[in-house]
Amino acid sequence: MKQEQISIFSPATVANVSCGFDVLGFCLDTIGDNMLITKTAEPGIRITRIEGYNLPLEADKNVAGVSALALIEDYKPNCGFNIEIYKKIKPGSGIGSSSASAIGSVFGINELLGKPYNKTQLTEFAIKGEAMASKSRHADNLAPTIFGGFTLVKSCEPVKILQLPTLPDIFAVVIHPQIEIKTSQARTMLPANVPLRDAITQWSNLGSFVHALHTKDHGLLGDSLQDVIIEPHRSKLIPKFNTLKQAAMQAGALGCGISGSGPSIFSLCKGEKKAKQVEIAFEHVYKDSGIDFEIYVSGINEEGIKVL
Amino acid sequence: MKQEQISIFSPATVANVSCGFDVLGFCLDTIGDNMLITKTAEPGIRITRIEGYNLPLEADKNVAGVSALALIEDYKPNCGFNIEIYKKIKPGSGIGSSSASAIGSVFGINELLGKPYNKTQLTEFAIKGEAMASKSRHADNLAPTIFGGFTLVKSCEPVKILQLPTLPDIFAVVIHPQIEIKTSQARTMLPANVPLRDAITQWSNLGSFVHALHTKDHGLLGDSLQDVIIEPHRSKLIPKFNTLKQAAMQAGALGCGISGSGPSIFSLCKGEKKAKQVEIAFEHVYKDSGIDFEIYVSGINEEGIKVL
Repeated sequence: MKQEQISIFSPATVANVSCGFDVLGFCLDTIGDNMLITKTAEPGIRITRIEGYNLPLEADKNVAGVSALALIEDYKPNCGFNIEIYKKIKPGSGIGSSSASAIGSVFGINELLGKPYNKTQLTEFAIKGEAMASKSRHADNLAPTIFGGFTLVKSCEPVKILQLPTLPDIFAVVIHPQIEIKTSQARTMLPANVPLRDAITQWSNLGSFVHALHTKDHGLLGDSLQDVIIEPHRSKLIPKFNTLKQAAMQAGALGCGISGSGPSIFSLCKGEKKAKQVEIAFEHVYKDSGIDFEIYVSGINEEGIKVL
Repeated sequence: MKQEQISIFSPATVANVSCGFDVLGFCLDTIGDNMLITKTAEPGIRITRIEGYNLPLEADKNVAGVSALALIEDYKPNCGFNIEIYKKIKPGSGIGSSSASAIGSVFGINELLGKPYNKTQLTEFAIKGEAMASKSRHADNLAPTIFGGFTLVKSCEPVKILQLPTLPDIFAVVIHPQIEIKTSQARTMLPANVPLRDAITQWSNLGSFVHALHTKDHGLLGDSLQDVIIEPHRSKLIPKFNTLKQAAMQAGALGCGISGSGPSIFSLCKGEKKAKQVEIAFEHVYKDSGIDFEIYVSGINEEGIKVL
């Protein structure tokens, strides 16, 4: 019997990862959206239900809808799809909320169509949904959502994603202050030009980060988690950013920085014990701030999006 | 009997390597300087002979002398050293002439002193010699000269050099048009600021290059050999640069770009046969140019500087 309905888990992701603005990302495993996609006789894409957050139901105004429309425009199936979204990742949180939606719909539809597309092709469709949300063509959250693990976006046109190896015993801690920063807004804060000297530091760090993953060198990974380009600008949008970062490092984190365009802040740690200590340190900084927050501790999700 | 004299081969190197300005480099094996270093009862550093090119004999005005002086200032040996330099790498050629001298003296003296310093420490001393030649503190030629293979300069202060793996069957072709471009002059051509968009492309390429070395992916290595930051500026100084590059790519090179600050141009190729074809292509472009030139075809020198 042909499969007519699919339930999927579309994970949250951390992009930029300090040294790799717009190209580097990794996948989380303890937070993500659920989606239910149903094949229908009626052609077209319909968002039939969204729970969790208030998002547009019109397919052409919803990132999951836009990416799905891009796929069916290319494939031209003689059927349609209903999409239900059970959103756990808050939009504007900086942990790949729009990417989870954009990848989720095309991944699910691809499964129901018998997998005509590979992951790179699905990323192409999803970029169109992501572009609607963030006003820019980028795949640094999309790539880890669909490929899992650590990913590097070699290029967006054409889409070329590199799957980087994962270090053993690596945990991420993410604190999400419940204030909204839209990716599109965070992007307007960025300078059009950057000092060559800083750019050199940044690409040296990204090269070192990739080398650290391959050589399983936790110390070097930590040394590479520096951001001299973006963090000085965007950290101003995040209450207590410097205090959080300092607390994470004092608790033994390998590094700490802004997740995507913020306001979430990630930390990478060697070992779950260290990660728990960083969680406590984050909590301690934020508990009297008057700002609501969530904290997630997660391993690196090497699988990425999956069928439930 | 204690060794009193040492003869060394200090190899030429290619820095920047398109995608890694100021941080990436690799070591050649078919061209380099010879140096003879002799321990003397009389303290101090003396450059007693230079053959090949006209360079200052005063130790404090010669890169080999300046780096050697930095070493003995730190070690305070109760002896001195005479240095003879048989220079094969033309100063200002863009293949690490000053680095070969700066590393050569401290490597040789370290051997004669019983190796009190490691390669990173020797690089620290050599940076001072290199800085005199190029008016900037950088180690992208020094690192491959002493470590061999492909190297990434994680940082200069403190010096941290990463030894990257070498791909099998990789050959370099270097054409050296016999015009002089001083590193200090080539540096003044560079913009102080670069577009963020271009910087992202550059760090994505460098990350991909490092990944390609680790995964032995010649195709990806070639795709990563792009320079959107420096080449557009410096290539103007090199006669027929675009024609040479096009010829190399048509002959099957993985990539082609400016070696260091030029005027030398390097190409990386998979297999010696392709390298020979690129050599012919380079020759063809330059033979009627009226400019003298040398071409070197070389494997990657994984050992770096060595005692003869």
